Amino acid sequence: MASVKGDEVGRTVKRPTPTDGPEAVVALIARLVEEVGGGHRIGIGAPGQIDRHGVVTEAPNLAGWKGPVPLAKRVAAAVGGKVTVRVDNDVNVAVLGEHRHGAAHHVDNVLGVWVGTGVGGGLVLDGELRGGPTGMAGEIGHVVVHPGGRRCGCGFDGHLEAYAGRGRLEVEARRRHGAGEATALVELAGDERMKSGTFAKALEAGDGVAADLIDQAVGALGVALASAQNLVDLQLVVVGGGLAEKLGPTFVGRVEQAVRALLWPGSSLRVAPSALGDDAGVVGAAAMVS
Amino acid sequence: MASVKGDEVGRTVKRPTPTDGPEAVVALIARLVEEVGGGHRIGIGAPGQIDRHGVVTEAPNLAGWKGPVPLAKRVAAAVGGKVTVRVDNDVNVAVLGEHRHGAAHHVDNVLGVWVGTGVGGGLVLDGELRGGPTGMAGEIGHVVVHPGGRRCGCGFDGHLEAYAGRGRLEVEARRRHGAGEATALVELAGDERMKSGTFAKALEAGDGVAADLIDQAVGALGVALASAQNLVDLQLVVVGGGLAEKLGPTFVGRVEQAVRALLWPGSSLRVAPSALGDDAGVVGAAAMVS
Repeated sequence: MASVKGDEVGRTVKRPTPTDGPEAVVALIARLVEEVGGGHRIGIGAPGQIDRHGVVTEAPNLAGWKGPVPLAKRVAAAVGGKVTVRVDNDVNVAVLGEHRHGAAHHVDNVLGVWVGTGVGGGLVLDGELRGGPTGMAGEIGHVVVHPGGRRCGCGFDGHLEAYAGRGRLEVEARRRHGAGEATALVELAGDERMKSGTFAKALEAGDGVAADLIDQAVGALGVALASAQNLVDLQLVVVGGGLAEKLGPTFVGRVEQAVRALLWPGSSLRVAPSALGDDAGVVGAAAMVS
Repeated sequence: MASVKGDEVGRTVKRPTPTDGPEAVVALIARLVEEVGGGHRIGIGAPGQIDRHGVVTEAPNLAGWKGPVPLAKRVAAAVGGKVTVRVDNDVNVAVLGEHRHGAAHHVDNVLGVWVGTGVGGGLVLDGELRGGPTGMAGEIGHVVVHPGGRRCGCGFDGHLEAYAGRGRLEVEARRRHGAGEATALVELAGDERMKSGTFAKALEAGDGVAADLIDQAVGALGVALASAQNLVDLQLVVVGGGLAEKLGPTFVGRVEQAVRALLWPGSSLRVAPSALGDDAGVVGAAAMVS
């Protein structure tokens, strides 16, 4: 979804992301900027790996994007003016939004964990979003929770994302269904994508496979977040993303219990749900250039 | 070991740490400061948890230290002058030493992992030693490497320290010896403490239990460091500490291989041994107030 927030005119517009490559996305962004009244500061959150110069170096979830795409430069050229364009990973940008105006407002040491199709993350340390030397900081989804365990989308074994990402949960549910376990997950989804809402519904209906998979997801989140806390020293974890939103505050509360059970008594780490939901990205993108 | 480096006089003095509580340690530090010619800036690395105000809140390895000890204030009072005293965790201070004058010189994003009796760590991000809101940042030893696994000294299960710290390796070696496995480790150590050098000797002699324990330690370090890299984005890991020193560059090389096997191809993370060895602490303590 391409979203533009025109701060000076108080408008937000959203459009589906074009699926025919970077040219179309750049053109759409330029049109949206025009639609909200132009702008000389443009912040963009994009799915994938983004370097410090606003180059999208990898974007496996964007159709038709191959090789590095200098998105910041191209957007600047497309809007044809003297503009500042900053691009960061979409989850980093969403976490920045939560830090500036959401669940992490006035909290300076925060890890955002976005539980969606995959598991993304963003790290705010001493009040600043951490990029890191390669721009890859915050990838909590690729913290190892079970060495040699379930295969992650990235090709390595035992990462958090393999236990908590919707995509991998779907693979696992279908595998268990194929092995003879009845589950409402497959009944509800049929041959379609197994949406986050499907997991919420199956869980509510008391489905055993759904309960088991979400138990494992909660446990894996607890392990990864406890490791992150002991390594980095945080005040707050914000849990967002499509699957977390659909599973709601009960899920976030269970994640908090799972983390706290693995931390020294007296730890003051809190876990809170995203306050901005879907808007976190567009709020963070605006904050990035404000 | 209490060490004082008198920068202006180019002298370093070392004394065994008194075992009769904080008063004796404070008095010794004051004497050592006098011995090197006095000073108005005093940096101290102490084993344990140190808060931002130089209070030692927990020091399980210092005999006779109970409850919080305001070490910075007491040392300032003991030297009786207008002095700046800064206290940090000993491993943090050693990692700072490596960053300012050792293996991590001119590298801005560094994790130091100190493999000794326990496993300590220190995190340098964007050129600054990270304290974190509670002063506990960098505790790589308490990253979870095997959920539900070997019990750590801190009481939780499956932490890196339980697989790589000398103390826990000794417990494990004696347990296996008690269960009937012959091992040079127990033959060499007898009823004495199983020193780091004992592990080095047993390993050289081809002892199976020693080889197995060190294999597990290397594997656990690989998992914890890969997690740290994906979360924080580093350029360099510096490996120090008594056990790492005794096992030498081969051990550090094996740790590097274990980490790299768990990272995406193209990762430029390097792993290097400590360059300052035992002196890292005293160099870092001086750097802390320079």
